[in-house]
Amino acid sequence: MEFFDLKPVEEARSIFLTAAGKRRMPVEHVPLTAAVGRVTAAPVQAKSDLPGFARSTVDGFAVRAADTFGASEGLPAYLRLQGEILMGHAPMVPLRPGEAWKISTGGALPEGADAVVMVEHTEFLAEDEVGIRRPVSPGDNVVQRGEDCPAGGELLPAGQLIRAQEAAFLQSAGVLTVPVFRRPRVAIISTGDELVEPEVEPAPGQIRESNAAALAALVRRDGGEPRYLGLARDQEEDIRQRLQQGMQDDVVLISGGSSVGARDLTARLISELGAPGILVHGVKLRPGKPTILAVAGDVPVVGLPGHPVSAQVTYGLFVTPLLRQLQGLPPEPPFRPTVRARMTKNVASAPGRTDCVRVRLIRDGAEVLAEPVHGRSGLISTLVKADGLLIIPSAKEGVLAGEMVEVELLV
Amino acid sequence: MEFFDLKPVEEARSIFLTAAGKRRMPVEHVPLTAAVGRVTAAPVQAKSDLPGFARSTVDGFAVRAADTFGASEGLPAYLRLQGEILMGHAPMVPLRPGEAWKISTGGALPEGADAVVMVEHTEFLAEDEVGIRRPVSPGDNVVQRGEDCPAGGELLPAGQLIRAQEAAFLQSAGVLTVPVFRRPRVAIISTGDELVEPEVEPAPGQIRESNAAALAALVRRDGGEPRYLGLARDQEEDIRQRLQQGMQDDVVLISGGSSVGARDLTARLISELGAPGILVHGVKLRPGKPTILAVAGDVPVVGLPGHPVSAQVTYGLFVTPLLRQLQGLPPEPPFRPTVRARMTKNVASAPGRTDCVRVRLIRDGAEVLAEPVHGRSGLISTLVKADGLLIIPSAKEGVLAGEMVEVELLV
Repeated sequence: MEFFDLKPVEEARSIFLTAAGKRRMPVEHVPLTAAVGRVTAAPVQAKSDLPGFARSTVDGFAVRAADTFGASEGLPAYLRLQGEILMGHAPMVPLRPGEAWKISTGGALPEGADAVVMVEHTEFLAEDEVGIRRPVSPGDNVVQRGEDCPAGGELLPAGQLIRAQEAAFLQSAGVLTVPVFRRPRVAIISTGDELVEPEVEPAPGQIRESNAAALAALVRRDGGEPRYLGLARDQEEDIRQRLQQGMQDDVVLISGGSSVGARDLTARLISELGAPGILVHGVKLRPGKPTILAVAGDVPVVGLPGHPVSAQVTYGLFVTPLLRQLQGLPPEPPFRPTVRARMTKNVASAPGRTDCVRVRLIRDGAEVLAEPVHGRSGLISTLVKADGLLIIPSAKEGVLAGEMVEVELLV
Repeated sequence: MEFFDLKPVEEARSIFLTAAGKRRMPVEHVPLTAAVGRVTAAPVQAKSDLPGFARSTVDGFAVRAADTFGASEGLPAYLRLQGEILMGHAPMVPLRPGEAWKISTGGALPEGADAVVMVEHTEFLAEDEVGIRRPVSPGDNVVQRGEDCPAGGELLPAGQLIRAQEAAFLQSAGVLTVPVFRRPRVAIISTGDELVEPEVEPAPGQIRESNAAALAALVRRDGGEPRYLGLARDQEEDIRQRLQQGMQDDVVLISGGSSVGARDLTARLISELGAPGILVHGVKLRPGKPTILAVAGDVPVVGLPGHPVSAQVTYGLFVTPLLRQLQGLPPEPPFRPTVRARMTKNVASAPGRTDCVRVRLIRDGAEVLAEPVHGRSGLISTLVKADGLLIIPSAKEGVLAGEMVEVELLV
């Protein structure tokens, strides 16, 4: 299995996400505050009209539109002022022809009124009279009862990401508990005989484990719950035991195993976890070639390269879409915001291979320049210096200096 | 103070952020896991070289580069194989001229070795001999000791947002506690006689409070800690008491006060909180004109419009930059990712006024279309339907159908 059949990124991802299949996280009902950033697992309906009554959108006078037809600056329509509608109260008396009620933004229209004239277009003549200097049409300056959502209507469909506005919308409808997909629990395992836990002072030849910190941050960003299962030595029993522990969770990420022997061992132990097993071993990707994509039972298992840059790039290409899919979102966001920038240097890419180039962004007048950050994928500092990633897809052979490119910010 | 002097958005923001001044949140030391998404309050130094020894970046053979000069496929350089360097161990014996050690990715180079030959460029002849078929230069396939960061070097400067890679970088250096700016505590007050708390069934003329849910979500997104202080009636004592309670926090947001009288009351009570007081009352912005920007003592106070769409737009233009500034970031991100889209319709904008247009994005072949979402700013559903905002700055008079625009996704 050692890179006999390197797959293009797009094909590898499609095979993996298809095998991960239709599985979605179980549904849980959470308070609205905790639902932000989560995805609805079922449609959410309005129990009553939203708003529950016709409301004014301006300060002015509630009227029957017909009473204002023909009104002008020179010849205002004079209406009998009946009083003021208090905020938060339903008007008790219906509005009759020839009458007006003073109303504030958000106030409830009295029965019989069908429009509001803005205060700027009126003249206040006497206690009990108002002059209308511009005609209004029925519905002008009014939010109709049920206009935000009618009773029984769908506030949100299933599969909707809950942003600030969805939270406000649900709260306005009194929906204070929301059915959402549970956060995927993601087991994180690091392997490598050269690694020590971060609180340990490394002896010569050793380095501190660091991929788990990055992966945990990325899993949280993507809506998952990271569970660090600790360091495994490059030994069969140690890795097997942690992989089996990880199978209790929804996804398993195992990074490292730097030496060829360790990589082979990890691959063999992943394939022993169950069918369908390893789907992709090796991707036409730089950095990130030695990636393993597997599914055991219904648990996706990803073997990430040990190099920190490779691990993060690979995570973004394969794990982010997986976590989106498990939470009921399309694996790829339909619209991907980018920064348009001009490349400062040529970057070569072999045909058929996807290259992920770390770039620093530099403002240059009205333009933004994208400068490749050089350095090996073993150096985390190169990712710290990078503002974003330029992804050169497999169909494209490199990028030329001066070319405009779309850079995805690293967040 | 009722809109005598509407200010352009850019000027209003600059006045406000300048008055909010050089104040930063106090520094706190948090565990690395909790530091992701926060900003360093001081530079962070490396205590020792990172990595602590020269490491191989490939699987192969550690050599003296000089011993490989002139080697070729036809005439390999033959070196005495001394053994294998075990992962996680420092080589005990230095490498002497004419010698090679088998080494894995991440392995420590023995003293005397200055390069690694990839295994693909070697031939394994006998137990104790290896043939080198390509020359290497000193440093090839090696990460030098201290190359990621030398001892005493700066891992991160002050004011650096901690992303996944910064977390990994700090962890690799054994920095497990990080000095960051405390999260700004943001008091949220809603006012309006027509509002009821969301768990209450509204009577005719009443609606449920909903801005607080959106604002709390946005404050969390921006790194702050929301504190909802509850609903105030449009009455002097009720609003004053909540504003004074809010002054215990780092920022106060008060939204609503729909009627003219209530708006005037809120403005007066804000101005009574202390000098310098109200700096901007009314902005050339649609939606969001009746915005109040104030500073009392060193507490910024923002009066947001009651309309949900206006409140969220205004929040993004004035509160997001404020929270960034308080946390030690530049108020505006240097690079703002957007989706390039083609407008489907003309949108007019008065000169001098900033327009924030809700748009839905639609994929159309290789292009993305941006379609304005119609509807009043009192309707939250219009924001739910919107994928992003198109900001038409004050210098620009509208956008034409067919024009390419940069849309900021609403997240």
